[in-house]
This record gives sequence, structure tokens and C-alpha cells, in this order.
Amino acid sequence: MTEQKSVTVLGLGLMGTALAEALLKGGHAVTVWNRSPGKAEPLAAKGARRAATAAEAIAASPVVIVCLSVYANADDVLAGDVLAGRTIVQLTNGTPQQARALAGRVTGEGGRYVDGGIMAVPQMIGGPDALVLYSGDETAFEESRALLDAFGTPHFLGGDPGLAPLFDLALLDVMYGMLAGYFHAVALVRSEKVPAAEFTPMVTAWLTAMMGSFPAYAHALDEEEFGTDVSSVATSQVAFPGLLDTSRDQGVDPALLAPLRDLLDRAVAEGHGDDGLARLVTLLERPAS
Amino acid sequence: MTEQKSVTVLGLGLMGTALAEALLKGGHAVTVWNRSPGKAEPLAAKGARRAATAAEAIAASPVVIVCLSVYANADDVLAGDVLAGRTIVQLTNGTPQQARALAGRVTGEGGRYVDGGIMAVPQMIGGPDALVLYSGDETAFEESRALLDAFGTPHFLGGDPGLAPLFDLALLDVMYGMLAGYFHAVALVRSEKVPAAEFTPMVTAWLTAMMGSFPAYAHALDEEEFGTDVSSVATSQVAFPGLLDTSRDQGVDPALLAPLRDLLDRAVAEGHGDDGLARLVTLLERPAS
Ligand SMILES: NC(=O)c1ccc[n+]([C@@H]2O[C@H](COP(=O)([O-])OP(=O)(O)OC[C@H]3O[C@@H](n4cnc5c(N)ncnc54)[C@H](OP(=O)(O)O)[C@@H]3O)[C@@H](O)[C@H]2O)c1
Ligand SMILES: NC(=O)c1ccc[n+]([C@@H]2O[C@H](COP(=O)([O-])OP(=O)(O)OC[C@H]3O[C@@H](n4cnc5c(N)ncnc54)[C@H](OP(=O)(O)O)[C@@H]3O)[C@@H](O)[C@H]2O)c1
Repeated sequence: MTEQKSVTVLGLGLMGTALAEALLKGGHAVTVWNRSPGKAEPLAAKGARRAATAAEAIAASPVVIVCLSVYANADDVLAGDVLAGRTIVQLTNGTPQQARALAGRVTGEGGRYVDGGIMAVPQMIGGPDALVLYSGDETAFEESRALLDAFGTPHFLGGDPGLAPLFDLALLDVMYGMLAGYFHAVALVRSEKVPAAEFTPMVTAWLTAMMGSFPAYAHALDEEEFGTDVSSVATSQVAFPGLLDTSRDQGVDPALLAPLRDLLDRAVAEGHGDDGLARLVTLLERPAS
Repeated sequence: MTEQKSVTVLGLGLMGTALAEALLKGGHAVTVWNRSPGKAEPLAAKGARRAATAAEAIAASPVVIVCLSVYANADDVLAGDVLAGRTIVQLTNGTPQQARALAGRVTGEGGRYVDGGIMAVPQMIGGPDALVLYSGDETAFEESRALLDAFGTPHFLGGDPGLAPLFDLALLDVMYGMLAGYFHAVALVRSEKVPAAEFTPMVTAWLTAMMGSFPAYAHALDEEEFGTDVSSVATSQVAFPGLLDTSRDQGVDPALLAPLRDLLDRAVAEGHGDDGLARLVTLLERPAS
């Protein structure tokens, strides 16, 4: 049995509601507030205490979970002289800069600040597959673990509050890249009437194998050693136009993959043809003029 | 002990040499030929028989492995009246159309045709991680298994010879999509001085979890049921400009992900905002005008 704690949830959208429900299931004393008060009703029916104002909700608990649509709203909602001595756990999606700015304000008013990035949809909250990234005040994080464990698997990244939003954004980006590749590839096999379900298990096995080269890419970048004896920028650059042409011939728009051709061309033009593909990262870090 | 067979390898580039070496290691009687004869020497030292011409090499064995840079060369090399009664296993990368055309020619001359796509680099040939896709004449494939098993793990896709090149291309595309996402994401974490090696293990775990939604996307496409209660086109479309802006603010060129924004915008404009992301595939299949 986990320890029962008092906790407040500000923002009862899809995600905030899932968070409050998980805390209630965990047996905690949950105070809730939402701008449009109607969204608090189902939670009140499950045992949550409703606060009339955000300030009242904040005053009710030592740990305050914030989950609004954007950071700017959190700035408004966390107003008034109520933060001192409390831990603010901000789970609204934002940028590293926004997290650092809010952390400065909260600590300036005597509170403790933890930022978080929820790598899950509301339906996953409370299950072991819901990864939640945290960064900021580590003591406050550890002291709130009994609560945060209710959401899923917590992962603490470090003292800089900007780390959780940074990793959150980066993981979303790599997910969208993989999805773009998958959607393009499925369109290609469907152009020959192959069902997506027939192709998909092979994709999973293949991508899992291909992820095996990520550590080597990471090593190349961290050590600035870009040589390769496996697969060079030039090899991909030579093959790429053919890949795009075949897509077009099959009636599939190659738009999602096309920018990689430009990047490969630039890398070769700048003399990096013999390097491994990790070299491409350094070109993204120095945008084309 | 596997059965010893006679086999010919045409084309001794990086990949053809790896294939011939794997066959020699498997104890088979290997005849080799390459346009520039010098590349056959190291293999001859390991026990391969050198043929003076492609026709002589083809005549030496019932199974002929072809691995040249492009299909057009295979058309030239497989000339003359020597194909009848032989199995041609074409491992040169090409398109479904090219595979079907060559299959037609080979069977027209009384030969049997198997096309293949090697999902591995030469260094992996002979190991269990080397996936090789095959399609075409299934009896010829099965009768050649003792040879083909020497290359890695074979996977037969079906009787249409175009299937192996189709799946090969599609798997390359999804790999490039994943790599594009990874390279972008690594650039983003590096913009805050986080080492790539610190971020990378989390990517692998995250992408593995995200691949869990592939079967649902495949099902949506195969059944044309695009509704979702998890993550809609509109949700991504609203979030995407912010993702790209944050990249720019961090000094990272968002070029690799930018086309996905255009596709999301198009999907919403066409009234698909409430659909799941699988809907995007259907837009790729009907290129923007
Ligand atoms: N849903 C997901 O799958 C998911 C996954 C990971 C992370 N997240 C993140 O979690 C956060 C919340 O997402 P959600 O899905 O719960 O969004 P949502 O369902 O749209 O809810 C938005 C919440 O923000 C409140 N809000 C908006 N503007 C406000 C303002 N000016 N003042 C006070 N409150 C305001 C809304 O209050 P009203 O009810 O009064 O409008 C509502 O409680 C976002 O940052 C999102 O990126 C969501
Ligand atoms: N390397 C890989 O990582 C890899 C992975 C998967 C698939 N593949 C595929 O495997 C095939 C071979 O790749 P590779 O890496 O071995 O390429 P490579 O090292 O460049 O070798 C190309 C081969 O093609 C021959 N060739 C080229 N033009 C010819 C012509 N007009 N007539 C006769 N022979 C000709 C070359 O002969 P000369 O020696 O006389 O030039 C050489 O044997 C390609 O289709 C490639 O896409 C390669």
C-alpha cells in the first residue's frame, strides 16, 4: 500500500482528468480545479474535493500538479501569494525556456519546481507503459514519488528544469519521423495491393534491428569521429534519387522523404561523402542559408 | 552438415564478394565471374573457380546468383542461350517493374526466376541478422534453400517477383524516415549540450513502444476505418507548428520534419481532422496537385 497524500490538480482536460483519476485510484486526497467548472463534476463524484478558485486549490495541498493546454495559462493560474512551501509539478507541454522561466518564478516565490513531460496518451495513464519524464528540483521530485508513481513510470533527467520538455520534444520529433517513414512505406506496398497488415510485422522487426546502429551514431557525434566502414553519406546520396523516383512511379508522393535528399546532397557537396550518416546531424545544427 | 551444391556468382563488388565468401564457407562448389577480373582473385585463393566469361560462369552451375550495381547490367550479363533449366537468383537492387520484366525474360528462355532484396550490409552476410527477402518461383526458391541459407535468414514473400524489391524499397524508406527523426531529435538535445549517448537509450525504448500502434494503423488502412479515440490528425496538426518553431528557436533546422506539417494541414483542410493518423497514408497515395 502506498502512502496517502494530499495533492491538487489544476486543469481537467483529457490529460488532467486522467491524472486526477489515477491519483484518486491511488487512494490520495485529491483537490481539483478547472476553469470551466463542469469538468470537475465527474471527479467529485469519484471522491475529489472541488475548489472554487485556483488559489484555493493550490492552498489545499503541498503538491500541485498543473496540466493546462499551454504554459501561458499556467502563468496566470499560478498567480497570487500561495506558492511558498509548495511543490509545483508542471506537466503542461512547453519549451525548455518556458520551463526555466516558470521554475525561476516559482522558486523566487519560495516554492519548489519540477517540470514533466508525459510520453503517453490519457488512456495509458496509470499503466506501466506511461513514461513520464521529470527534471528540476530532485528532492521535491523524490518527496512526491508516492504521487507521481500513480501516473506511470517516472524517469528523472536532471536538475535543469528544461530537460524534461527538451527530451519530450525530441522524442515527439523522432516519433513523427518514424511515422512519416512508416506511412510512406505503407503507401508504397499498398501501391501493389499488399495489405498493410502483411507488411507491418516485418517493419517492426526491421526497425528494431536498425535501431542497433543508434549507439554508433551517438558515439560518432559525441566523439566527433565521423568515419565509417559500413554505410557512407555518399552511398545513401547515390541511392536516394532512385528511391524517390520509384515512389513517384508507384504513384506515391515522396514529399515526406524528399528533404533528406537535399541534406545528403549538401553533405556530399561540403565534402562529407565518406563520412557516416551521423554527419548529417551537424548540418541540421547549422541551418542552410 | 548442409548439402554441397554447385553455384555461380556473377558480380563481385562488395556485396557479391560477401555472398561468394559465404557460399565457400558453406562448403559449396562456387564459380565466380566479374567484369573487372581482378576482383575474382581473392576468391580463387579461397577455392572459387574463375570463369572467363559470364556465359561460361552461368553454364557451370544450376543456380546463378546475380549481384551487380543495377538491373540494366544484369540484362547484359544474362545474355546468350544459357538460361534454360537454370535458376536465376537476382539480388541486384531494383524496382518491382524491373524484377517482373527480367523474370519474364528468364522464364521465356526456359529458366526459373527468383528475385531478392538483401536487407543487410556486406559485413552482416552469413550471420542470422542478415534478412534476405525473396519472391518469384517458390519451387526454385525451396530447391535453392541450401545455398540461400548461407547468406542469412531468408524470407519468401510470394510468387510475384516484384514483391521482394517492393518490400526492400519500403523497408529502406521507413528506415530513412526513422533516421531522419533520430537525427533531428539528436540535434535538438545537443542544442542544450546533452550528449547523444545520454538521449539514445531512451529513444530506443520510446520508438519500440510507439511501434505498438503500427498494427492499429495497418488495421485502419486495410479496413478503411479511420476513426480514433487516441490521437487525431487535428491534435497533431495543432501541435506541429510549435514543434517546428521550437526546433528553430533551438538553432536546429526543422527541414526534415516540415513536410509532415503540410500533410497534416492538407488532411485537416480536406475534413479529416477527427480521423486517426493512418488517414495520412491515403493523402500520399493521391499526390498534391
Ligand atoms: N492528450 C494527450 O494525449 C496528451 C499527451 C501528452 C501531453 N499532453 C499535454 O497535456 C496538456 C493538457 O492536454 P489535454 O489533452 O488535457 O488538453 P485539453 O483536453 O485541451 O485541456 C486543456 C486544459 O487547459 C485548460 N485551459 C486552457 N486555457 C486556459 C486558460 N486560459 N486558463 C485556465 N485554464 C485553461 C482547459 O480548461 P477549460 O476546460 O476551461 O477549457 C483544460 O483544462 C497539454 O500541454 C498537452 O500537450 C497531452
Ligand atoms: N553494399 C551494400 O551495403 C548493399 C546492401 C544491400 C544491397 N546491395 C545491393 O547489391 C548490389 C551490389 O552492390 P555492391 O555494394 O556489391 O556494389 P559495388 O561494390 O559497387 O559492385 C558493383 C558490381 O557491379 C558490377 N558492374 C557494374 N556495372 C557493370 C556492367 N555494366 N557490367 C557488368 N558488371 C557491372 C561491378 O563490376 P566491376 O567490378 O567490373 O566494376 C561490380 O561487380 C546493388 O544492387 C546494391 O544496391 C548492396
